[in-house]
Amino acid sequence: MLKNPGTLVIGGARSGKSRFAEHLIVSSGLPRTYIATSTPFDDEMTARIAKHRRERGRWWATIEEPLDIASVIFRETGPEKAVLVDCLTLWLNNLIFYEKDIAAETLRLCELVKDLRGPCVFVSNEVGLGIVPENRLSRSFRDAQGRLNQDIGEACGKVVFVAAGQPMLLKPRQEPEITL
Amino acid sequence: MLKNPGTLVIGGARSGKSRFAEHLIVSSGLPRTYIATSTPFDDEMTARIAKHRRERGRWWATIEEPLDIASVIFRETGPEKAVLVDCLTLWLNNLIFYEKDIAAETLRLCELVKDLRGPCVFVSNEVGLGIVPENRLSRSFRDAQGRLNQDIGEACGKVVFVAAGQPMLLKPRQEPEITL
Amino acid sequence: MLKNPGTLVIGGARSGKSRFAEHLIVSSGLPRTYIATSTPFDDEMTARIAKHRRERGRWWATIEEPLDIASVIFRETGPEKAVLVDCLTLWLNNLIFYEKDIAAETLRLCELVKDLRGPCVFVSNEVGLGIVPENRLSRSFRDAQGRLNQDIGEACGKVVFVAAGQPMLLKPRQEPEITL
Repeated sequence: MLKNPGTLVIGGARSGKSRFAEHLIVSSGLPRTYIATSTPFDDEMTARIAKHRRERGRWWATIEEPLDIASVIFRETGPEKAVLVDCLTLWLNNLIFYEKDIAAETLRLCELVKDLRGPCVFVSNEVGLGIVPENRLSRSFRDAQGRLNQDIGEACGKVVFVAAGQPMLLKPRQEPEITL
Repeated sequence: MLKNPGTLVIGGARSGKSRFAEHLIVSSGLPRTYIATSTPFDDEMTARIAKHRRERGRWWATIEEPLDIASVIFRETGPEKAVLVDCLTLWLNNLIFYEKDIAAETLRLCELVKDLRGPCVFVSNEVGLGIVPENRLSRSFRDAQGRLNQDIGEACGKVVFVAAGQPMLLKPRQEPEITL
Repeated sequence: MLKNPGTLVIGGARSGKSRFAEHLIVSSGLPRTYIATSTPFDDEMTARIAKHRRERGRWWATIEEPLDIASVIFRETGPEKAVLVDCLTLWLNNLIFYEKDIAAETLRLCELVKDLRGPCVFVSNEVGLGIVPENRLSRSFRDAQGRLNQDIGEACGKVVFVAAGQPMLLKPRQEPEITL
């Protein structure tokens, strides 16, 4: 087991990031737990959740937790099992919707991640690579998501970027250190 | 020649992805064919197409095909020539506009790509790395584009991501396999 | 010192690109100069600038220059100091706002970058990886930003892409050349 068995998988919408995260877990051969942060706000979301669950199959224990994922992760992780949290973007969305303290919740999660007792994979969206959104709420969500990804990325031992279904390992760095 | 001589080049708008794809083809020294999927919907598009064609120069055979690119690729590819398809994003746009069956067309294209008889480079946009679009049509386009990129990325032997004109090889992976 | 001591650091909003660029400069141990291109258009921007300055601390000489960064860079760079330009996206924004000739200004900057006398790090946003913006001005900004990143990326000896706070070296390429 790694010193820090946390992995952050980031990517765009429909980039294959969830599929790759599931592949990581399945390849480990460990019993697997899926922590779903999604709350079906509308029909589009409900359909998407049901589709994801069907695709995942039934070899997963599924726990739905929209807000207090730190407690669930603390309880569920261990050296002999693999946990998937899908996804931090919906978690952030829920924090905002229920007017939670994002900074405090992020700090709590990161402290936990630095001290994980077993493998845990976090899926999150990268949303800051488009044009500046016109409305303030979108800009503020984009900033919060970016900060969250930086913080979790720093806490996790591994960070993977996925595009067109293909993973790229950002951390730990495979290349020599970058200098001026 | 590779087992699968298909290459997917993805990137953002004005990232240099088309230029890099052309560089790949030109560097091969093979006779070259350009399959243009663009349909000039408006003046902005017409000007852009004309500009691209001027920049490309005349050492290319150009074929315009907005929809049935599979047939053209099947006919045009071969071991002694190099084919460029620019781009899948406009092709997808055309499929939607003409109300074609996207899943069926994608499947047909991917089956062909898995069995290419000669080098073929596909240019496509990554559009899922911004904030969630407000209108449903944009969200649905984003999802369709992401799925298409994943499917073609899986079918192709190579996937390259381009940013600021710089290519990054995502597939085949140069690093050891990523595990938990 | 490298043949070309220019470095372009690109990434999304809140990706950690500025922090990484500052880390590059600080790690060099050289005296440091910060060229700020930001013009506070509104309260949101004013607060962000003040926050950035507080976070940077006072070991930086700060020069504010919204438009003529080429002259400032020419004057400030040298083998015994490190210069940070943060960021090209706001510079581009200023060029547009004051109706300057973007192509001419970009060319002037790139000529200078090709012949830098000391290390200079440029921070810039990648904004082309979302869905096509609905308004023409945003599309045109996106195109201008993409072209600028390509041009500066070509002029600089190094290009780094940052996501979730993690850097990835795009240039110089660490892998064998990509071919068909």
